[in-house]
Amino acid sequence: MTDITTTIHDIYRARTHVYQHLRPTPLFHYQGLSELVGGRVFLKHENHQPVGAFKVRGGLNLVAGLSKEQKLGGLFTASTGNHGQSIAFAARAHGVKATIAVPEGANPGKVAAMRGLGAEVVFHGPDFDTARLWITEVAEKQGGTFVGPTDEPLIHGVGTYGLEIMEELPDVDVIIVPVGAGSGVCGTAIAAKSINPAVQIIGVQSAQAPTQQQSWLQGRPVEAEMTTIAEGLATRISFANTQAIMRKYLDDFVLVPDAAIEEAVRLLLIHSHNLVEEAGAASLAAAIALAGKMRDKNIVLVVSGGNIAIDRLSKIVAAGNR
Amino acid sequence: MTDITTTIHDIYRARTHVYQHLRPTPLFHYQGLSELVGGRVFLKHENHQPVGAFKVRGGLNLVAGLSKEQKLGGLFTASTGNHGQSIAFAARAHGVKATIAVPEGANPGKVAAMRGLGAEVVFHGPDFDTARLWITEVAEKQGGTFVGPTDEPLIHGVGTYGLEIMEELPDVDVIIVPVGAGSGVCGTAIAAKSINPAVQIIGVQSAQAPTQQQSWLQGRPVEAEMTTIAEGLATRISFANTQAIMRKYLDDFVLVPDAAIEEAVRLLLIHSHNLVEEAGAASLAAAIALAGKMRDKNIVLVVSGGNIAIDRLSKIVAAGNR
Repeated sequence: MTDITTTIHDIYRARTHVYQHLRPTPLFHYQGLSELVGGRVFLKHENHQPVGAFKVRGGLNLVAGLSKEQKLGGLFTASTGNHGQSIAFAARAHGVKATIAVPEGANPGKVAAMRGLGAEVVFHGPDFDTARLWITEVAEKQGGTFVGPTDEPLIHGVGTYGLEIMEELPDVDVIIVPVGAGSGVCGTAIAAKSINPAVQIIGVQSAQAPTQQQSWLQGRPVEAEMTTIAEGLATRISFANTQAIMRKYLDDFVLVPDAAIEEAVRLLLIHSHNLVEEAGAASLAAAIALAGKMRDKNIVLVVSGGNIAIDRLSKIVAAGNR
Repeated sequence: MTDITTTIHDIYRARTHVYQHLRPTPLFHYQGLSELVGGRVFLKHENHQPVGAFKVRGGLNLVAGLSKEQKLGGLFTASTGNHGQSIAFAARAHGVKATIAVPEGANPGKVAAMRGLGAEVVFHGPDFDTARLWITEVAEKQGGTFVGPTDEPLIHGVGTYGLEIMEELPDVDVIIVPVGAGSGVCGTAIAAKSINPAVQIIGVQSAQAPTQQQSWLQGRPVEAEMTTIAEGLATRISFANTQAIMRKYLDDFVLVPDAAIEEAVRLLLIHSHNLVEEAGAASLAAAIALAGKMRDKNIVLVVSGGNIAIDRLSKIVAAGNR
């Protein structure tokens, strides 16, 4: 059993670094979504971050905590999405070089976004895992620092939005968080439960990528089929540190089908006028699935990420016009 | 000639009221948009406000300045969009009743949004002007306060985002603002030019609704044909107070066709992952039209509003897949 080392104190310490570059994000109530779900629904707008995702908080905390030597050696990571942009953003903010490995054929829009933030993007191998293993070796050879998806400083940093939720809505009853590798839900859970253990923390994954949920349920690493269209939820493996935190802190962990996630993207456009990518919209899909249990509750849905290709968006909004 | 009464001092005074309920909105740089326009492009994210639009700043300042008697008498206005939601939001924040007239057949989504914010919505007459004239009379009969679209306290309140731009990016060269009735561009211009008279302020309207632009060019009220799909720019008449401010402060006032505005909505989705309604996206359309003059400049585009019907959005995103 992996020990849990992160505490709310780490999150408070991270906040001093995070707030040097970011402001708190809004927490807004939406009447239309509340009527759909049955409780009072608030969106925690992590999609209003500079790179559109909560992960930038973690990146900033991680880079701020590097030694001078580590900063000189540069950061190395693998990502096809928001993680890469967050590391690129944080590295640039601290004048550190970031090298990001992506598989050949990676989404050109995302590559451009990472390059636009000053990162060096290197194409390697046919898939994400190949790119990741390769860049780990490159980092070691070049004396740089490899950043994994659930490194503790990332959890401390992203936990700062959990603090913001508790400060702005101390009477929150339920917080629903999409789970990719788990840094977001773990930071949220530690922040929220340390202040009020009665807050329910619910994780959500796609039914087409249930690895974390299955591992959580069974209490051991489970590999499951992964076919989801929600890239931010598309993990094939579980991580010991986030699984340990989830096992201790999560009240529930639900699965929603990709079709419900796409419908949630559409509902967020209609009722909140926010573009949220599939992974980030899973929290609304879960709230709708759990509507019977949400009555009269104060529900916070964490929404994050806007990396949604225009052709996919086109299909999603057109689907609602049938 | 109408005297100009608003100064930057009014905007500073408004800010104490505005910041009791709102936080500053982000000003983010976007590499993709910068490459399209040729300068360094920043978006001022007024679309991240609670009702999705800058107008809420004006509403909050106006309501804060009412006397006790005026608060008891309630607010009356006419709107089919963001103005109505802003007044509803501000009224609720201060415990004041808001009654909003809309034409019969008004967009049900917008009516639901205003009701969701606690306003009483009354349907009256076949078009907006009929509803507006009627609610003016109702306000008078019932001893309430009618709120017009360019009331000075609204200009003071919305000017606070202009201050935020100057504080966060003191070396801004150009600010481009969509013009409906003109409160936004006037507040911005007074705030920005009072701090640095060299900042260029550029207004933009749809070529399918050029009333304000024509009136500004000719120095007298001009009525022009109005067929734009951009509801927030769809004004048929000019207003003496905003015209006087625009004549003094605006460096340019351009028209862009509706087709370019729709393309700008699509480009904002792709490059910034933000849903911005047509009126609010006109600033990007103008920057693209003026690209030759934008080289090496720091350009702030004010984006605001997310009131875009899903069927119209569907057409706009599909158009890009041709």
